[in-house]
Amino acid sequence: MTPKFGVTAIGNAIVDILAPATEEFIAGQVQFGMRPNSMALITAERANELYSLIGPAIEASGGSAGNTMACFASFGGNGAYIGKVANDKFGDVFAHDTRAIGVHFESPPLVGGKPTAQCIILVTPDAHRTMNTYLGASTQINEDDVKEDLIANAQVTYLEGYLFDEPKAKAAFFRAADLVKKHNRKLSLTLSDPFCVVRYRDEFKSLVENHVDILFANEEELKELTQISNTDEAIKSIRGVCDIIVVTLGDKGSAIITPDKTIRVAPIMPKQLVDTTGAGDAYAAGFLFGLTEGKDLAECGRLGSLAASEVISHMGPRPLVSLKTLL
Amino acid sequence: MTPKFGVTAIGNAIVDILAPATEEFIAGQVQFGMRPNSMALITAERANELYSLIGPAIEASGGSAGNTMACFASFGGNGAYIGKVANDKFGDVFAHDTRAIGVHFESPPLVGGKPTAQCIILVTPDAHRTMNTYLGASTQINEDDVKEDLIANAQVTYLEGYLFDEPKAKAAFFRAADLVKKHNRKLSLTLSDPFCVVRYRDEFKSLVENHVDILFANEEELKELTQISNTDEAIKSIRGVCDIIVVTLGDKGSAIITPDKTIRVAPIMPKQLVDTTGAGDAYAAGFLFGLTEGKDLAECGRLGSLAASEVISHMGPRPLVSLKTLL
Repeated sequence: MTPKFGVTAIGNAIVDILAPATEEFIAGQVQFGMRPNSMALITAERANELYSLIGPAIEASGGSAGNTMACFASFGGNGAYIGKVANDKFGDVFAHDTRAIGVHFESPPLVGGKPTAQCIILVTPDAHRTMNTYLGASTQINEDDVKEDLIANAQVTYLEGYLFDEPKAKAAFFRAADLVKKHNRKLSLTLSDPFCVVRYRDEFKSLVENHVDILFANEEELKELTQISNTDEAIKSIRGVCDIIVVTLGDKGSAIITPDKTIRVAPIMPKQLVDTTGAGDAYAAGFLFGLTEGKDLAECGRLGSLAASEVISHMGPRPLVSLKTLL
Repeated sequence: MTPKFGVTAIGNAIVDILAPATEEFIAGQVQFGMRPNSMALITAERANELYSLIGPAIEASGGSAGNTMACFASFGGNGAYIGKVANDKFGDVFAHDTRAIGVHFESPPLVGGKPTAQCIILVTPDAHRTMNTYLGASTQINEDDVKEDLIANAQVTYLEGYLFDEPKAKAAFFRAADLVKKHNRKLSLTLSDPFCVVRYRDEFKSLVENHVDILFANEEELKELTQISNTDEAIKSIRGVCDIIVVTLGDKGSAIITPDKTIRVAPIMPKQLVDTTGAGDAYAAGFLFGLTEGKDLAECGRLGSLAASEVISHMGPRPLVSLKTLL
């Protein structure tokens, strides 16, 4: 019997605050820990300070795996999400947006603790995004939130590397990996961010070698994981470590690496390039939708490119049109 | 001496919740009071119910006059805004977005009362918007919020017709009109919405005849005000009632009507038409920016078209790029 869910994802439940910014502004914030084109973790105080410095913004539900599930559902996939919001306005927004697109989401909100996580995302004129995350309530996700039936009834369980940043979330992560094994399902991991890989390289390596069936990484993350600076060499070194390794290559498309072959996937150019926030998340959604629908790998890659193309054509990390209608 | 502010605006301070929707969905909601392509006032309960029915959304600061001031500041204008938010998350968002773009905003938030106003905006594939407003804290704006110096030191005081929907806000409106007269400044009014005109036709007519120097209306609002269904006839009937009457005509551009002439202004087509929310607000901003900078009326109209063109090219009612750089 086909499991009820194509994908169950676990991630940090975050509302994004997206604002245009200049490269000069970002350069001036590096001394305070900002990481151009990447993600930095920040405190509540720093979040308030940074918010007071940025220009007008828009708010949109985000979070890496949350974005992936929104795209997955937008393709018509049946998915579930596990993550922790607070019982506050942004928590309501995240829960609404997740459920409204048809993703099963039942994780109870945190009461009386930290507020819902937020990510201040600065988008430069070249459409690149620089992320600053206050994890708030999202770190209070725990093993109890990882309901066995959600994992048992999913073809693929998808985890974001960002979960490693907090002990409780990491415990939830490992519980999910154990349940995947118990129920003989597939485990998928995205490496999330090059700095995240640096923080947890050995653990990620062990995970990838021993547990992960489908790995997503971009070029920088792959180089950090393998510690090989040449992309082709890095790909050669990782081939066969998992069944499927997908390396996204920005405007050069992507490469799907199996034990015995490499499939190159062309990018799909958007009508206009506005904001790359969520591009990798959307790609993973398209790929996993194809995979759970029994498509061949080249088609999975094409669906990934299609989803990414929609998401980068406007501000915000989730699709504004039904991805199903783009098929 | 030139006053410190080009424009001081008073309006309902609202955070928008924008979601794509089908025409069928909207048609199905008309029985609950929804007004296709227009604005309906809703209760807190109805707002919650409607929110549970709509798809994934994005949040952005809005409010008619608030949008106008954001665009005015984006052109480089020095402006002030008077409006009431609550001390909650959406209140923080509205205050941030208003101040971050350089608009003077000091109205104290409401404590312990209703939440910040929100408007659930449904955007159909033809880019039209259907608005559903829960006024919340915004109705608690009062005469004390209308600081005399903000009116005395502004070339133009700009009021939105929506203020008439609540007695306290209406009192604030009339106090502003009195102060404009006292300090010999200009008063500008936007009629806001055809249903708003129907609700307060006689009062608006009296205001326009006796107090307003610069009037903004779209075709439907003009027809409702004059009760003449032919646009040319309606224009003829209103000519000279105010010094400047600007009628926006959607994709046909706009017409500027003075006692002795009519200036036709061509529309500026956006790269892509996505969401018309805020088009009229942006037009008023460009027009008033030109006027307060001493431009001729045709140029004022062109600036209005330019601002509207940017705002309708993406989801959300406020510019995502600096309007100054578009000049």
